[in-house]
Amino acid sequence: MIYLDNAATTWPKPEETIAAVEDCIRRTGANPGRGGHQMSLAAGRIIYETREVVANLFNISDPARVVFTGNATESLNLALKGLLKPGDHVITSSVEHNAVARPLYVLKSRGVEVTEISLNKDGLLDPDDAAKALKGNTAAIVMLHASNVTGAIMPIGEVGKIARNNGIPLIVDAAQTAGFLDIDIDQMNIDILTFTGHKSLFGPQGTGGLFIREGIELVTLKEGGTGSQSESFEQPRDLPDKYESGTPNTPGIAGLGAGIKFITEKGLDAIRKHERDLMSDFIEGLKQFKRIKIYGPADPDLQVPVVSINIKGQDSSEIAFVLDRVFNIACRSGLHCSPMAHKTLGTLERGTVRFSFSYFNTKKEVNQTLEALDKIISELP
Amino acid sequence: MIYLDNAATTWPKPEETIAAVEDCIRRTGANPGRGGHQMSLAAGRIIYETREVVANLFNISDPARVVFTGNATESLNLALKGLLKPGDHVITSSVEHNAVARPLYVLKSRGVEVTEISLNKDGLLDPDDAAKALKGNTAAIVMLHASNVTGAIMPIGEVGKIARNNGIPLIVDAAQTAGFLDIDIDQMNIDILTFTGHKSLFGPQGTGGLFIREGIELVTLKEGGTGSQSESFEQPRDLPDKYESGTPNTPGIAGLGAGIKFITEKGLDAIRKHERDLMSDFIEGLKQFKRIKIYGPADPDLQVPVVSINIKGQDSSEIAFVLDRVFNIACRSGLHCSPMAHKTLGTLERGTVRFSFSYFNTKKEVNQTLEALDKIISELP
Repeated sequence: MIYLDNAATTWPKPEETIAAVEDCIRRTGANPGRGGHQMSLAAGRIIYETREVVANLFNISDPARVVFTGNATESLNLALKGLLKPGDHVITSSVEHNAVARPLYVLKSRGVEVTEISLNKDGLLDPDDAAKALKGNTAAIVMLHASNVTGAIMPIGEVGKIARNNGIPLIVDAAQTAGFLDIDIDQMNIDILTFTGHKSLFGPQGTGGLFIREGIELVTLKEGGTGSQSESFEQPRDLPDKYESGTPNTPGIAGLGAGIKFITEKGLDAIRKHERDLMSDFIEGLKQFKRIKIYGPADPDLQVPVVSINIKGQDSSEIAFVLDRVFNIACRSGLHCSPMAHKTLGTLERGTVRFSFSYFNTKKEVNQTLEALDKIISELP
Repeated sequence: MIYLDNAATTWPKPEETIAAVEDCIRRTGANPGRGGHQMSLAAGRIIYETREVVANLFNISDPARVVFTGNATESLNLALKGLLKPGDHVITSSVEHNAVARPLYVLKSRGVEVTEISLNKDGLLDPDDAAKALKGNTAAIVMLHASNVTGAIMPIGEVGKIARNNGIPLIVDAAQTAGFLDIDIDQMNIDILTFTGHKSLFGPQGTGGLFIREGIELVTLKEGGTGSQSESFEQPRDLPDKYESGTPNTPGIAGLGAGIKFITEKGLDAIRKHERDLMSDFIEGLKQFKRIKIYGPADPDLQVPVVSINIKGQDSSEIAFVLDRVFNIACRSGLHCSPMAHKTLGTLERGTVRFSFSYFNTKKEVNQTLEALDKIISELP
């Protein structure tokens, strides 16, 4: 099978990821931070080590400010609901994933005001528009780092400057960029960075987290046992315990740590170069087809390795179905949980066919996919 | 090592659990329910199959009413915050885990009234006390099925009758009982059943869930991408999607399914008999030590295989430390995330030493532990 659905979940995973998960269940299966015995301490060390590799990846000086969650959606719910109060104003883009759009929809009903910044026809955002959207009650800017539909990269560094200059927290959804683009929370002035483990960070599903800058206090989404200050009914105030209640996904976090170490060992530059080469070949190939429309920048320098297309007059789900069943190529059709993006692209009715690449894909697979599209198009009426 | 911290996390896991996790990452690593390609459909099937085995275990007729979460703490936060509004009254026991106590503490500050039912000296609850606590604004009864400190089993069936007769939803925290006691949501009149995967259900950490009876609508804790109704900013209204946002822990859920299948194959009766035998031997052995105080019923018929003790005049953490470092026996000391229980037992200062058994423990291990305690006591001044 040719797997080109890496923007949903990367597959395959590095062997190191699988080994770390298995080893954790088999040899370090106790409850971390909830007992003084040796296996419990070893489980706690695994979690702390992953906190450290996450911190290193994003230039976070204090690993304790890395909080683990079940996925980026949970991280974003904690960030948005924890920060925004009725009467607050929040600025966002018009291409957000439902992980941002749906919590904001709920917050709107609770009295939070939302401004969506429109993008240009390639799905790119002008940072000046963020500056123009600022109001007296603006309490946060929340934005994905790159679109999961078009791959378009947002100018987070410039938006970060605007946010910092105006004393407004910037929340960045790095679901599509962590493990592909360089992310430096200080240089980019990111106050809350949410990430998922199971995409380009090569961790298993069920992992994710967020960085919360010192000085930002969020209302907790969940409270419960933390293994710390057990004598108190009040949730601990210190990070990460404040935001991490209940037994964590220790095997998953072990796998996430191994996934990030894999990235560090291969080198983020080398990984990015490989994926960019694949995307570049794919986009060049697509441009040869007159009946194919590419959404977004169609420029490897302006996007992550996610490419959305349609074939003129054809249903996106039918194309994806044929690619899967006839050519054994896994891609994704539909709305990709991003109605906002499709409204912007004018594809809310039909969706798009999305191809997304990872480090384990090859040039041969790119060529085979282009050949498959050629065959499909040649057989159309 | 002799591992007697199974009330925190069971270890070891059945080989089937580990194999299912690994196989899922390796062969079914795509995103479930978010694409039409074959690997995505296969991942979706894994999740549906686990929903079915959970439903079968608890006599739930509609698997769609089983919602997966990251752990029991998340399930309880969803249940409590989703159900209780300011002005509501809730009845609970005086031995709840912090997974109930801490969310209730937050809800109190938001105007929810809480009544704690006191227990007798063995940590047992009189169901009449639940009936007496009912008020006009009682909106729920929430109670653990068995204490994680003393192991004492609560009379859920009788409390369920009181709840049903008064039209009040009953929320049961089955963290310590699922996979040991028979649980029938209809027979016991349970309206919301919360469970964790990583204890007696033999799943990996990072899994859990809840059953929500038809007719009960909870405010969502999180919203986001569900792979369904992607065109809408509004969270889907159907279960399980309504309460399951973001990519699930598919490998973990695969492991949970395998863990529950292991229970079904061995037979819950056989598992319970083995664990009860171990507990029985252990309690009988403990009763021979004059300096040991057992907390709770000290009766294998009235408790789950969790036994808390103290040695007269000794610090609980010191005993646990010696057991771990000298005898290589892993147990747990302290408050076990349950200050309520320790207040009831009068052990809020010193905590207890807790031993908890699983299917993989042996009589030999029980004897070795009793011998270790004997040695420790004989060397005391």
